[in-house]
Parts: sequence; C-alpha cells; structure tokens
Amino acid sequence: MAGTIVLTLPDWFSDHLRGFADPLDSPEARMDLVLSLAQRNVDEGSGGPFAAGVFDEQGGLIAAGVNLVVPSLAPVAHAEIVAIAHAGQTLGSWQVGLAGGYELTSSTEPCAMCLGAVPWSGVKRLVCGASDSDARAVGFDEGHKPADWVEHLTSIGIEVQRDVRRQAAVAVLQAYAAGGGAIYNGANSEEARPDA
Amino acid sequence: MAGTIVLTLPDWFSDHLRGFADPLDSPEARMDLVLSLAQRNVDEGSGGPFAAGVFDEQGGLIAAGVNLVVPSLAPVAHAEIVAIAHAGQTLGSWQVGLAGGYELTSSTEPCAMCLGAVPWSGVKRLVCGASDSDARAVGFDEGHKPADWVEHLTSIGIEVQRDVRRQAAVAVLQAYAAGGGAIYNGANSEEARPDA
Repeated sequence: MAGTIVLTLPDWFSDHLRGFADPLDSPEARMDLVLSLAQRNVDEGSGGPFAAGVFDEQGGLIAAGVNLVVPSLAPVAHAEIVAIAHAGQTLGSWQVGLAGGYELTSSTEPCAMCLGAVPWSGVKRLVCGASDSDARAVGFDEGHKPADWVEHLTSIGIEVQRDVRRQAAVAVLQAYAAGGGAIYNGANSEEARPDA
Repeated sequence: MAGTIVLTLPDWFSDHLRGFADPLDSPEARMDLVLSLAQRNVDEGSGGPFAAGVFDEQGGLIAAGVNLVVPSLAPVAHAEIVAIAHAGQTLGSWQVGLAGGYELTSSTEPCAMCLGAVPWSGVKRLVCGASDSDARAVGFDEGHKPADWVEHLTSIGIEVQRDVRRQAAVAVLQAYAAGGGAIYNGANSEEARPDA
C-alpha cells in the first residue's frame, strides 16, 4: 500500500490556463474558463466532461480542477473535489475560503459528494452551468441530494447561482456522450456503464 | 499552480497496519483496526480523529485512510475520501467495488460529502462506529444529509450497519476534543473553530 494518494492534472492543464486573462470579472467569464477546461478534458480524452474553479473576490483564479476519476484511478476525483484540494494546496491552507468571498464555479451542478464538499471548502458562492437533470440526461448519476440543497446552502451563507452559460455547459456533456466517453457512476448505479 | 494534488499518509501508517492479522472476519474486528488508526492519528497529531478502511469480501484490507484535512491542506481529505482514493490507486482501478462485495468501514458515520462518495466507490456495505450525533457532540459539523440516507443506500444495494464498537469510537472523538484538536468545519460552519 503506497503512502501517498496522487491526483495528477493533465499535461495540457497549466498551459491552457495561461491563455486566460485574469481577473475574470463576471460569473459568465469565469464559467467560460471552466467550460473551456471541461471541453479540453473531453477533447484530450484526459477525464470526464466536468471542470471547476475556485476564484477570489476579484475574479482571480486560485486553482482549478477537471474530472480525473478514470485517469487517476480514484472514484472520488470529481472536478470540484480536485479544484478544492488544489486550491487548499495552492494557498497553503485547508481553510480555502477564510481569505474572503471565494467562489466555486462548476461546469455542472455538483453531485451529492461534491455538494457536501462545498461548505467544507469555505467558499461563499457556488456558480453552476449545466443542471443536475442535464447530467442525468447523458447518463451520469448525480446521487441522492437533499431536495432543499439550494435553500440549505443559502441558509449557511453560500449564495447559489444556476444556469450560467447552461447551453454551452450542456454542449460539453453532449460532446462527451457522443464520443462514447465512460460514464463512471460506480458499480452500484443502475445507470453505470462500466464497460463504456 | 502545481500539476498534482498529493495526499500523504502519516509516517506511522504502513507500519501500524502490519500489526494486524489479515483477514479480519467480523465487522467488529475490522472496526477495531479502523479505530486504532483513528486513535493513532490523534495520538500522533497527524490529523483528525477519523479513519476508514476498504475491505474485500473475505475481510482482507484493500486500503485505508485517516483524516488528513489539516496536514494535507485539503478540506476534502476526510478519512473516507482518502480511503476510497487509496483503494482505487492500490487496486489500479477506479471501479473499486467491481471485484466483489467490498465494505467501507468508517470510524464515524460519514459526513454529507463522504456519504455522497459511498455509491461512487462501488462498495456493497457501509459499517459505521460513532454516530452523526456523536460527531456533532464534540463540535464537528456533519453537513446536510438526506434524512433517509440509510434507506437510500439500502435501496441501491448498499447494506448499512451502524453502532459497531460505537462506545470505543466515541472515545476516540472525545480524546481528540479533550486534547484541543482543530475542528475543521470550513469557514461557513457555525461550529467552526478555525483558530483551535
């Protein structure tokens, strides 16, 4: 048993981010960056069609992540988990959100696991592109989320903004599905297509 | 921004596991191993008072994890997330549970994030020591879990067994709290004690 767990971002990742001007001063501009990461992950075959970014109050990118479930051999390596861990290690603090009004921008509404991670990250805003139903429409299981998840996040001081560049976000999911990408839902999901 | 996210298990981790005979053929025996990891994590000051293990159908340990939130600078590095990622990387497959009736043994009932990770791991059984309320009693926030989480896991083919060695599991939580350990709930939690 190894003494470390390593999640490796794709080779193209850092160069890709250099192409974006910083700060990105609207939710749409931040979503465009995140969607470009998700689309690139599809194009390069380096993981699932999901990406996420942690941004500071001025729209500066702290860290980002893409889905690494298949390449990193880790069923928990969803884009939001990767982005939040990456942000903590980039900042050198597990208290990612303490520095101020940080935002987590996610190409698709978080699954049950990633939703649970949002409060632990300390961000004050969650911005979503595609919806839960959009993800389900291409075969991904989003898990068992509390029906009142938006209200709950709001009640603990985390603002939620949905449907930001939703159509473009759906296009990334559809491009992945059309390309026959693996739908990694775990062995328990009715929708699992582990051989895909 | 680094190209990898690394979660490093404590120095004592591998040696500690060598002290246990394998396989462990009862939930109690598996929980004892997991609780010994959680207690050791407290004693060594190497993370929070939580541990988890992934076991195969014969009770053989596939991989384990301890809470690494503070030392690994990653608010998502809860014990179950670490154990599941570790299991995938140890097996060389993101489909941890496909090999058979795997079990996730957790020293405390999973928080909302870790609960969401359980179906993605592919395990067929979740065994818990301390309860959600036990964790809250020492100041940890367990997040916003669906009220019917046990029924839901059962409905998708994941058996849940609770209160296994519960008293011993609570003792680990209390030892940590008594020692003034950090309660890392994220900046949004009312119960957060970031300076602790």
